[in-house]
Amino acid sequence: MNSSIIRFILGNVLKIEGLLLFLPAIVSGIYVENEGIYYVSIAAICIALGFFMTRKPPASQVFYLKEGCITTALSWILLSFFGCLPFYLSGEIPSFADALFETISGFTTTGASILSDVEALSHCALFWRSFTHWIGGMGVLVFLLAVIPLSGGSHINLMRAESPGPSVGKLVPKIRYTARILYIIYFAMTVLEIVLLLVGGMPFFDALTTSFGTAGTGGFGIKNDSFVSYSPYLQWVVTIFMILFGVNFNAYYIMLFGKLKKAFFEEIRAYFAIIGVSVCIIFFNILNTCSGIFEALTHASFQVSSIITTTGFSSVDFDLWPRTSHTILVLLMFIGACAGSTGGGIKVSRFIVLFKTIAKELHSYIHPKSIRKIKMDGKPIEHDVVRSTNVYFITFVVIFCISVFILSLDGKDLITNFTAVAATINNIGPGLQLVGPTQNFGHFSVLSKYVLMFDMMAGRLELFPLLILFHPAAWKDLFTKNFPQK
Amino acid sequence: MNSSIIRFILGNVLKIEGLLLFLPAIVSGIYVENEGIYYVSIAAICIALGFFMTRKPPASQVFYLKEGCITTALSWILLSFFGCLPFYLSGEIPSFADALFETISGFTTTGASILSDVEALSHCALFWRSFTHWIGGMGVLVFLLAVIPLSGGSHINLMRAESPGPSVGKLVPKIRYTARILYIIYFAMTVLEIVLLLVGGMPFFDALTTSFGTAGTGGFGIKNDSFVSYSPYLQWVVTIFMILFGVNFNAYYIMLFGKLKKAFFEEIRAYFAIIGVSVCIIFFNILNTCSGIFEALTHASFQVSSIITTTGFSSVDFDLWPRTSHTILVLLMFIGACAGSTGGGIKVSRFIVLFKTIAKELHSYIHPKSIRKIKMDGKPIEHDVVRSTNVYFITFVVIFCISVFILSLDGKDLITNFTAVAATINNIGPGLQLVGPTQNFGHFSVLSKYVLMFDMMAGRLELFPLLILFHPAAWKDLFTKNFPQK
Repeated sequence: MNSSIIRFILGNVLKIEGLLLFLPAIVSGIYVENEGIYYVSIAAICIALGFFMTRKPPASQVFYLKEGCITTALSWILLSFFGCLPFYLSGEIPSFADALFETISGFTTTGASILSDVEALSHCALFWRSFTHWIGGMGVLVFLLAVIPLSGGSHINLMRAESPGPSVGKLVPKIRYTARILYIIYFAMTVLEIVLLLVGGMPFFDALTTSFGTAGTGGFGIKNDSFVSYSPYLQWVVTIFMILFGVNFNAYYIMLFGKLKKAFFEEIRAYFAIIGVSVCIIFFNILNTCSGIFEALTHASFQVSSIITTTGFSSVDFDLWPRTSHTILVLLMFIGACAGSTGGGIKVSRFIVLFKTIAKELHSYIHPKSIRKIKMDGKPIEHDVVRSTNVYFITFVVIFCISVFILSLDGKDLITNFTAVAATINNIGPGLQLVGPTQNFGHFSVLSKYVLMFDMMAGRLELFPLLILFHPAAWKDLFTKNFPQK
Repeated sequence: MNSSIIRFILGNVLKIEGLLLFLPAIVSGIYVENEGIYYVSIAAICIALGFFMTRKPPASQVFYLKEGCITTALSWILLSFFGCLPFYLSGEIPSFADALFETISGFTTTGASILSDVEALSHCALFWRSFTHWIGGMGVLVFLLAVIPLSGGSHINLMRAESPGPSVGKLVPKIRYTARILYIIYFAMTVLEIVLLLVGGMPFFDALTTSFGTAGTGGFGIKNDSFVSYSPYLQWVVTIFMILFGVNFNAYYIMLFGKLKKAFFEEIRAYFAIIGVSVCIIFFNILNTCSGIFEALTHASFQVSSIITTTGFSSVDFDLWPRTSHTILVLLMFIGACAGSTGGGIKVSRFIVLFKTIAKELHSYIHPKSIRKIKMDGKPIEHDVVRSTNVYFITFVVIFCISVFILSLDGKDLITNFTAVAATINNIGPGLQLVGPTQNFGHFSVLSKYVLMFDMMAGRLELFPLLILFHPAAWKDLFTKNFPQK
């Protein structure tokens, strides 16, 4: 295994985290908060450690899928570990497991919180919490690829391990430019949202953190009631941006070249269709609980967008909604956003593949000898993508069931456990009942919290990069100098 | 399509049903009940219709998987339609949807009831209800294959469509003898159970109906409290027979030749391991709710066996058990019994394949170039079986979600809807909350009842044979005389 490149990349990840930690420190300076010192100290440690780990260049730049997965998983674990230390050391989150939970929830853009009183946090903590969403949304390794020159050519494996979706498309031949384009679109859209929120009269700090949470489809708010007390204008801005950040970023890239029609490919059309149908059903279902048509439409749109994009903001306590709406929201939790977006869940494109697999199977019963390939946007999908989508789904369900089982040892009700796992593995945030929008995850046992942390990480990294860490064969040749051949 | 052979087989199925309907008529004679007249009339109609449909021999005996699936699905629909008429016409179940629900629940060996007071039924109705389990357990087409000489050689497609499990093994080269051996084992084990129940002092009628319910892994009881009031001896006899009927019948066939060690193949070992572990956990979980170790062990064993084999008898109201036990029972609902048994669920062997698929995928991340085949009992599994297992699982989950969604329109809670679908699609019977062991399915809307009927049938016929009926291409060449070529 090429462990020197793993060390090298992890070192760079730490350096980046060190630099990013200065941002909350600046916030603490502005608001004159003592907690800033912890961010500065951890930043210094990260940078020092980063320089130590990158002092020697890697012996070989070549690495394969295995190295890509291990690097990605370890990066995210390192990021979360160091990222949680300011919360823990400052005493703002006194339990280490809780601090780690909150940070993993941030980086994985889940937005599930163990805090019952968010408003008690310092501004720098609130900023860092929301900013982890923004970092995690597009991915720190994608950022690394965008800024650090890595030769060797197999770095698509890093992006493949970190990016959501069944297949990673390079927008342009060079992975470095692909990463840059993604970050530019991401940055521009975030700025646009901040501006539109400011126009609506939202304070700057609120607009900043809200936009981070929307862009990463995270969901951490800075208010205890999430979005309930904001104006309908602000709710609609967030609704639209949640939907936009759930779109496959390839579509924006295609749009940049004016090919508007081509940008509405099959996944995008399905995504908008699902949103439309869900909003309609919930609208009629909740109409009599609302004060008017506009309010019902606002809440239905906000909640559907929030759940399908796996953001997790709430404009209303949807745990109190009728049961048909509950069921739709739970189903949307699993569908998730588009591949290649910042959203989580199983992804719309995977569901398209799954449905087409079923149709193909039915067809094979009727015409056993016909060989029909599954197509998407008119082009046949590679068999490997179909297979890995199927396996992904199966693995997802198995991890899901095991998690629900372990959580059940706490003795909580099935809906709480079921939606807690659904809300974390799909990187959403709130579930129903004891983990509903007005509740939090603080009441779980430490074991359950670690299971949910695993689920959040597994959901964000799309299962296998994280699972590989538990496979003995992955570590077999850690210290041998057998580099993979190109 | 070879529609003449479909007509011919359906005619024979009706003739068999007609004959079987005389049995409850005899019961009504013994207990001097007026309801017998309805059974005799429907029997006569079935036989007359059967003779009409089989008066012309089929133009060709050859048929393929498509014809096999359509024949199987239509047979089961016909069986259920005519089977429910005595309940409906006699007024014992006044609603047609309810009568059909009860009959489908019987034939598919589900055991979910819409009746709140079972004990109010006549003896002949109780007998017929339980007897449908026995017919449905091994399958009416398998019976047909055992007794009616069909040449042509492609009748494995009938058995494939009706028998549970990912792959159908012929025990002996001739399908007819395979079917006979299966029925002989089935019959002998049923008789043995009746005798052992009589030894324990159970009345003959109870022993008969209980054995039918156990053998088919159905679960209809003749008492409102299912098995609560029977003695521990009787509960243990039923426990052991439930486990035995959940075993792959191939194992018994292998045992008949004295190859005891070979009979414990991988699926059987996994099946017993799952039962053992589940009983242990539930035993400790419910210990303090029971009056002693023996009682806890009895209830834990009875319930685990009842749920994993998808029988659905209950010796206690497990809806009142602690939540860890709930979660285990819900997980067991999906695992189900062995392939090639009379039980339902996804089947143990499918889960073995699914887990091995995940392990293989992980392995491929570490060694992308290695080609490893999934093995079972030391032999590689055909790629087609792996693929169809994966597709089966995906289709199962999709049907499951759609069903839960439609049920949610009734406005009932998520646990009720979730476990109602789980209990029907896995052919179990009782679920939790409003469909718990002491409840029934009568409170659902007619739409929901039809959805659950579909789920029961889909579960028993392993999805695709039933789904095919909804595929337009299946009917395209219904009236053309284009027979499939061998």
